[in-house]
Amino acid sequence: MPPYRILPLPGYTPTIGRLVAMLSYARQTTLDAVEGLTREQLDHLHDERSNSMGGLLAHVAAVERGYQLVTFEERAPTAAENDAWSAALKLGDKGRREIRGHELQFYVDELRRTREATLTALAARDDVWLETPLRIAPTLNAHWAWFHVAEDEINHRGQIRWLRARLP
Amino acid sequence: MPPYRILPLPGYTPTIGRLVAMLSYARQTTLDAVEGLTREQLDHLHDERSNSMGGLLAHVAAVERGYQLVTFEERAPTAAENDAWSAALKLGDKGRREIRGHELQFYVDELRRTREATLTALAARDDVWLETPLRIAPTLNAHWAWFHVAEDEINHRGQIRWLRARLP
Repeated sequence: MPPYRILPLPGYTPTIGRLVAMLSYARQTTLDAVEGLTREQLDHLHDERSNSMGGLLAHVAAVERGYQLVTFEERAPTAAENDAWSAALKLGDKGRREIRGHELQFYVDELRRTREATLTALAARDDVWLETPLRIAPTLNAHWAWFHVAEDEINHRGQIRWLRARLP
Repeated sequence: MPPYRILPLPGYTPTIGRLVAMLSYARQTTLDAVEGLTREQLDHLHDERSNSMGGLLAHVAAVERGYQLVTFEERAPTAAENDAWSAALKLGDKGRREIRGHELQFYVDELRRTREATLTALAARDDVWLETPLRIAPTLNAHWAWFHVAEDEINHRGQIRWLRARLP
């Protein structure tokens, strides 16, 4: 068992570092859950209302992109961003239709690029910023928003584990 | 939308308070996910390898009890505790056989009692304790352990949402 500790991390203010430790742990469990899946497995639909595991991975990356806008850029997505991300954000019929045919590496690359941008932005901010109400959504603070990004990912990782155990 | 903020909370040291805010938010989403389920729905098995939603709720409480021992009492479970909790911890055939026939309130009461004990213990500890390696499991600290309790709960809440959407 590797060391599992939530602690301040070098390069971040203390509370942001603990949050990054949580985000990183959650992400590793997601990557572990999909390791070795083929394109066909990533596209498989368990039933007519299910999301594919590929769709869920794309969703995880899109949710993170969305919270980058809200917390770092303090703006809503543009119409073009909404168009580009809506299949992954909303899943459902559009997700099943549009998100398919990719190898695992495609999804992993998108997750990696997205996470790198998150970590760069978090390293440039501090613990006061983290817990101040968000300008464009003052009922939230960035600490909740980034916990929620991990939480949504873990929720879907639970579904991915369930779906993977039932692949044909 | 209610205020969603992760912040220090009165009654806890700052980092423990933030952790309690995460645990509480995760728990509320679990309770929301099962609201109104009948005994038959809680017992329903989606397929022969599925856990029931009641079983998953019992599992969430049992995992929390387990980490109370590891982090607060710094000991492994006794043989009697292992016997009492193994169906809920391990789920599978034993869980399907033994955890059934209960109304929602039964599971909610167990979750509430368990959480009350957690919060009382966390209120009596401090941020230094939170991040010190655990005596009986020095690769872990309590901060990771309690984040993991939330993470395991969220993972199973994701499965509960999936299962609930497919009830007959």
